[in-house]
Amino acid sequence: MNTDKRNKSDYPHIEVLPTRWADNDMYGHVNNVVYYAYFDTVVNRLLIERGWLNPLEDKIIAVVAETQCQFFSSLTYPQILEIGLIVERVGNSSVTYRLGVFCQDKPQIAAQGRFVHVYVDSVTRHPVPIPAIVRQGLLALTVHSS
Amino acid sequence: MNTDKRNKSDYPHIEVLPTRWADNDMYGHVNNVVYYAYFDTVVNRLLIERGWLNPLEDKIIAVVAETQCQFFSSLTYPQILEIGLIVERVGNSSVTYRLGVFCQDKPQIAAQGRFVHVYVDSVTRHPVPIPAIVRQGLLALTVHSS
Amino acid sequence: MNTDKRNKSDYPHIEVLPTRWADNDMYGHVNNVVYYAYFDTVVNRLLIERGWLNPLEDKIIAVVAETQCQFFSSLTYPQILEIGLIVERVGNSSVTYRLGVFCQDKPQIAAQGRFVHVYVDSVTRHPVPIPAIVRQGLLALTVHSS
Amino acid sequence: MNTDKRNKSDYPHIEVLPTRWADNDMYGHVNNVVYYAYFDTVVNRLLIERGWLNPLEDKIIAVVAETQCQFFSSLTYPQILEIGLIVERVGNSSVTYRLGVFCQDKPQIAAQGRFVHVYVDSVTRHPVPIPAIVRQGLLALTVHSS
Repeated sequence: MNTDKRNKSDYPHIEVLPTRWADNDMYGHVNNVVYYAYFDTVVNRLLIERGWLNPLEDKIIAVVAETQCQFFSSLTYPQILEIGLIVERVGNSSVTYRLGVFCQDKPQIAAQGRFVHVYVDSVTRHPVPIPAIVRQGLLALTVHSS
Repeated sequence: MNTDKRNKSDYPHIEVLPTRWADNDMYGHVNNVVYYAYFDTVVNRLLIERGWLNPLEDKIIAVVAETQCQFFSSLTYPQILEIGLIVERVGNSSVTYRLGVFCQDKPQIAAQGRFVHVYVDSVTRHPVPIPAIVRQGLLALTVHSS
Repeated sequence: MNTDKRNKSDYPHIEVLPTRWADNDMYGHVNNVVYYAYFDTVVNRLLIERGWLNPLEDKIIAVVAETQCQFFSSLTYPQILEIGLIVERVGNSSVTYRLGVFCQDKPQIAAQGRFVHVYVDSVTRHPVPIPAIVRQGLLALTVHSS
Repeated sequence: MNTDKRNKSDYPHIEVLPTRWADNDMYGHVNNVVYYAYFDTVVNRLLIERGWLNPLEDKIIAVVAETQCQFFSSLTYPQILEIGLIVERVGNSSVTYRLGVFCQDKPQIAAQGRFVHVYVDSVTRHPVPIPAIVRQGLLALTVHSS
């Protein structure tokens, strides 16, 4: 199974994010750590804005079980990024996102990530099935509709 | 001298910035530290995009001598912010910015900051006069032109 | 009133903190923003470890109303810091801390900050009196006992 | 090949790191992003303190090509962490580290990461062989000597 998604058009959802001064490290490029802050921001904003997550109220929340990122070329500040998101796999309790990081004015992918959320009871932190309404929404993001 | 600037219209320069998931702390609001990351981002982006600063090449750079912020109401993720900037004072080697942090859809100011840059030789780190072209540009940002 | 506290011996409480790679910015020194993360860390750790704050359980919490920092000399990664804390003023609802940032192996202060906490009801976020047990502990930190 | 390293005693190098207030996210636990800041801090500090890296001077620097982390149990602030490091593989231009994150007073691993550095020319950013002195040092970290 080839899950490589290297083109902006591979991603059904794109969020625009500006870099910040502090994103750059001593080498003058965005630090590898910060890409994961972009992933967190894009995934959770999608969930919150679609009504699928209310972090401080919900009895079922999504916690991060695994993340991964490959870095192909550097980014910097100031720059406007486009972060693409596609749902790669929806399991019983977990969902795997693939994320692509692009500079707004370039077609080549700068970095490619994977982000696994597990749905848990907010008190016991034990895995629970993904709520039906969320599952349905996530499945719609497993393909590019265009 | 009343330098309070509490209205968006007080600021000649406004930058739009989205919050990030990690900006929120345990209380579910943007952590006080992060406002200073917004200030850094807005000030330096202005300097870089107008051609007044090239951080890794310039012989004269601007280093931060003092910052300050008052917090009036909380912000959160996800939210779109508008950060206003006005130059409050231009000295021989230093410039003082005033910054206002607003939520995009609200008129009330959420936080008000002050940010002092001192121009220094990038090697010796001793203060030097602000370059003439930069000084001229900064002076134009000391008033709201509208 | 001279509240300048430039010697390590001026501070009744000192916390040791290592810098992190990401603390450094493009200029190879600790970014001004990060000093405020040190302040947050030192103040809250003191409150939590002495039993004066339980962030996610307490009905009364401390929120930040104002912070300020002057930067005298640069810090870098890797380095071990000593952050001094003294309580400068205890009001009815608010407490003002002064913080001094030192490199472990140097006597000169690198930065000096001020940090104002206001005690509020965790739900309404309206100011309330500082709890008696906390007030008593804070007052003991207004002077250096040695 | 089983490269799972779940015990503190599997790691030839351990660094002690305190968490910071801002490491915690809205759920009151250390945000997944911050673990990568720990990795960066531990790997680079090792390289710098052993004389294998001088980030702003060297003609050959190490850039991050890929990172990955699995999260087993949560961490929080305030807490003292122990981050274990072992070199998993030394290639011609690249080195793969495995990192284990532990709470100081618990034997169970909280998270396990992988971190790939590629040595490049600091100007062209093209891969170059790992310098001999560094390679030798890294090989010594591929096994636990006890």
